[in-house]
Amino acid sequence: MLGGLSRPTVAFRGHLNSETSLCLRYGVNMRCLAARVNYKTLIVICALFTLVTGGGKATRSSCHSAGYSKVYTQRAPYHPDGVFMSFEGYNVEVRDRVKCISGVEGVPLSTQWGPQGYFYPIQIAQYGLSHYSKNLTEKPPHVEVYETAEDRDKTSRAAEWTVPKGCSLSTVPDKTKFTNVKQFVAPENTEGVSLQLGNTRDFIISFDLKFITNGSISVVLETTEKNQLFTVHYMSNTQLIAFKDRDIYYGIGARTGWSTLTRDLLTDLRKGVGLSNTKAVKQTKIMPKRVVRLVAKGRGFLDNVTISATAHMAAFFAASNWLVRNQDERGGWPIMVTRKLGEGFKSLDPGWYSAMAQGQAISTLVRAYLLTKDQVFLSSALRATAPYKLPSEQHGVKAVFMNRHDWYEEYPTSPSSFVLNGFMYSLIGLYDLKETAGEKLGKEARVLYERGMESLKAMLPLYDTGSGTIYDLRHFMLGTAPNLARWDYHTTHINQLQLLSTIDESPIFKEFVKRWKSYLRGGRAKHN
Amino acid sequence: MLGGLSRPTVAFRGHLNSETSLCLRYGVNMRCLAARVNYKTLIVICALFTLVTGGGKATRSSCHSAGYSKVYTQRAPYHPDGVFMSFEGYNVEVRDRVKCISGVEGVPLSTQWGPQGYFYPIQIAQYGLSHYSKNLTEKPPHVEVYETAEDRDKTSRAAEWTVPKGCSLSTVPDKTKFTNVKQFVAPENTEGVSLQLGNTRDFIISFDLKFITNGSISVVLETTEKNQLFTVHYMSNTQLIAFKDRDIYYGIGARTGWSTLTRDLLTDLRKGVGLSNTKAVKQTKIMPKRVVRLVAKGRGFLDNVTISATAHMAAFFAASNWLVRNQDERGGWPIMVTRKLGEGFKSLDPGWYSAMAQGQAISTLVRAYLLTKDQVFLSSALRATAPYKLPSEQHGVKAVFMNRHDWYEEYPTSPSSFVLNGFMYSLIGLYDLKETAGEKLGKEARVLYERGMESLKAMLPLYDTGSGTIYDLRHFMLGTAPNLARWDYHTTHINQLQLLSTIDESPIFKEFVKRWKSYLRGGRAKHN
Repeated sequence: MLGGLSRPTVAFRGHLNSETSLCLRYGVNMRCLAARVNYKTLIVICALFTLVTGGGKATRSSCHSAGYSKVYTQRAPYHPDGVFMSFEGYNVEVRDRVKCISGVEGVPLSTQWGPQGYFYPIQIAQYGLSHYSKNLTEKPPHVEVYETAEDRDKTSRAAEWTVPKGCSLSTVPDKTKFTNVKQFVAPENTEGVSLQLGNTRDFIISFDLKFITNGSISVVLETTEKNQLFTVHYMSNTQLIAFKDRDIYYGIGARTGWSTLTRDLLTDLRKGVGLSNTKAVKQTKIMPKRVVRLVAKGRGFLDNVTISATAHMAAFFAASNWLVRNQDERGGWPIMVTRKLGEGFKSLDPGWYSAMAQGQAISTLVRAYLLTKDQVFLSSALRATAPYKLPSEQHGVKAVFMNRHDWYEEYPTSPSSFVLNGFMYSLIGLYDLKETAGEKLGKEARVLYERGMESLKAMLPLYDTGSGTIYDLRHFMLGTAPNLARWDYHTTHINQLQLLSTIDESPIFKEFVKRWKSYLRGGRAKHN
Repeated sequence: MLGGLSRPTVAFRGHLNSETSLCLRYGVNMRCLAARVNYKTLIVICALFTLVTGGGKATRSSCHSAGYSKVYTQRAPYHPDGVFMSFEGYNVEVRDRVKCISGVEGVPLSTQWGPQGYFYPIQIAQYGLSHYSKNLTEKPPHVEVYETAEDRDKTSRAAEWTVPKGCSLSTVPDKTKFTNVKQFVAPENTEGVSLQLGNTRDFIISFDLKFITNGSISVVLETTEKNQLFTVHYMSNTQLIAFKDRDIYYGIGARTGWSTLTRDLLTDLRKGVGLSNTKAVKQTKIMPKRVVRLVAKGRGFLDNVTISATAHMAAFFAASNWLVRNQDERGGWPIMVTRKLGEGFKSLDPGWYSAMAQGQAISTLVRAYLLTKDQVFLSSALRATAPYKLPSEQHGVKAVFMNRHDWYEEYPTSPSSFVLNGFMYSLIGLYDLKETAGEKLGKEARVLYERGMESLKAMLPLYDTGSGTIYDLRHFMLGTAPNLARWDYHTTHINQLQLLSTIDESPIFKEFVKRWKSYLRGGRAKHN
């Protein structure tokens, strides 16, 4: 976010009011010059600064409000079934490095380190954890029900179906669901049977679906582009995403058994329109304004068509189930992309594990287990500790600092890289598991957690520059400059330490949180 | 120097010309905002800044030229008989933590960590090394000869002696000096015999002296205090220093054998007038303007009375000889003051050794040996390596970082402190010795040097904050905030690395010098 800045800019931290402080920012570096100056003074300074530093090049646009990552307060002691850190504020799917939410898998596809797209377990776990956390912190959404195929359901409005010539629609009982469902028959050469929706408020659509033949469910949208209807098609194939004219296509697999499809139409629309062959989804202004209708084609069954503002649990379980399905026989989630951490490090070849992925997956799976009591989640989480025990050279994620401190590597590089934030996520996962699995099953996680925490407490000072933090220890491992953490990683470090300070009484966490927060306000450690 | 600053100040780096840059300084932190702004703009900024930040409290006086320690260019490859780093720019005796130059010992007495004063081998070695370096870089001084007791010496002016009633003065041959000398007899109740000097340019006085009874040599000075003559008395006792009215007293010991006394009258005057019971000599404006005359009392002999601008070799050998005389049976120079490095460290009780003292002493002694070929200096230097080999707990100076890297401690604390600049000085001493002593005698120094250099190369990145340097590793040892190096230590780090880069080809030194220099101009390491 701040990566591109090299020229100093004037920034106002916070809102422009009596608390406003004037800050000078140099790339990652920010110094607050004056707190509580009034608005007029700020304008003067801002103009003058622009005059002096720009040499005619800078403009008023370099004076702007700074949009830093926030430091959250850890509201209450952390629990494995609670909000995950500050993830209720995360919106994974909106990131431009998320190509789209896969229709087949229901989870995001990353282009961060490869434009071809790949499933990145860290991103998937964060997708799950953010929706899990939002579900705890947001109020339940209003759900508009459009079709349940039950007459007796008085709360639902009468479904308005249009059935063109050559198509049919009927209400039939379903043996496995023990309810009535809608059966549709709509050959490819017809317009399909359509259900009026007309929702202008919410954009998460959900329905139960079972195809008999190939088919599609399409959703027609009015958008901020005037007089232009866009249609999102959910097709019974495995194509990831396509966009042509005003049609966006997502493959959702064959769906020959019953399943619920829940789609964020806003995300699906914008990822389609912004589709690109590069690493980043293109910026677009388009927004949905109205969900007009749903159109079914082919032969199949539909039930429980709803629209709501959110469907966090659907996203959470999509992530949890993906993790269960995609864990390999070593307990890991192999990452199928080459990762070169930087000069001096060997590349990680596709198939590497990440302690951060293992940890975040565990945190997700533990929550799924605590919600469902389904052993499949706990058992997957327990198997996920295996790579923590193996050194990086043996396809694990364990590094040892100076022959003394065990460390779990976000990137199991050679030489070791000791990335701080990934390590802390790996520890939080272990904590969740040892707290949940009981003394016996959780013993391994507990031992790994305790060793890791010992390392963290010993090594934390190495990441402290006295005015910010360092992302990893590559400077020590490679003899280079420190790889300074940009502010959003710095705030991540703080948020993680705040979480840890509620589960471990060691004063180091509270002290470091206090000091590292002060750096955000331009504070510095003492000099001699 | 910058230790007290906590409020930001505007500083102009460099002279006020087209190269001037506007910098904002926060204690140790300086950011350069704009280069090449013109003088008028600077004045506007300066005034505005004062207005905004001070809230009425700051004044124009916070706008000033910054006087940072300079980074020197290592002119040529370093050699054990050459200039020591940038020490030709040091002026040890002028520091307010130097109580005075002892008349008995000829070396400075420190009050840095104790107002009572104590001989601090580091300061003494630096006194020697700075004068050695000045001697190589400055042109030889003009020496005005006032008395040689030889008529045949045509270059010397005719000595103008005044011999009052009850006193006598005669020219006599001296058996040990093989020349004529002046014999004086001047009882305490007389005014003493006096020699007119009348030098208004230079203030280093030197003479050969031998007392038969107690006596004194006094030097009368005109100063910047109008109509007030000050007198510096060199007394045949062991009093350190005293000051009363306009008389300053230095004990120079019995001097019953021939010795040369060389005194910097400017230093002797100012240390006397500024005499204090605190750690710091008081500020004074007084300066000598004219060396009026020399007065001898008691019974004794004088010869070779001269005045010159400098006498660097005298100071250098005073230091070298003090080091030889005061080395103990373990090869160390015990420091007879309690040193508490900071919270979390045990106090060092009087008698501790310092690797920095050992190293700087070695550098001094090696130079004395190379000048004189006197084995006493080399032998002392060789014995000085002994404390490097013993751990701090065993009255040595060796620490081991993480069970792997040998380190020589400026302060052999428990826990270890790993002070960077002291370590590098200790290595430079070892280098001087191993280069000078030959393969056989120098073997131990070479092994210690090589191990130390390995540690330095490995650990150097731990001192790099990405915008400055850290003084020691107490943050890692104690789990605290990093102890940031103030700018003059930062420049010392750079000067030391520049020296090392000329004697070791490892690219790390050149790279770190380049980056650490960039920090002085507001540069920063990259962030991710």
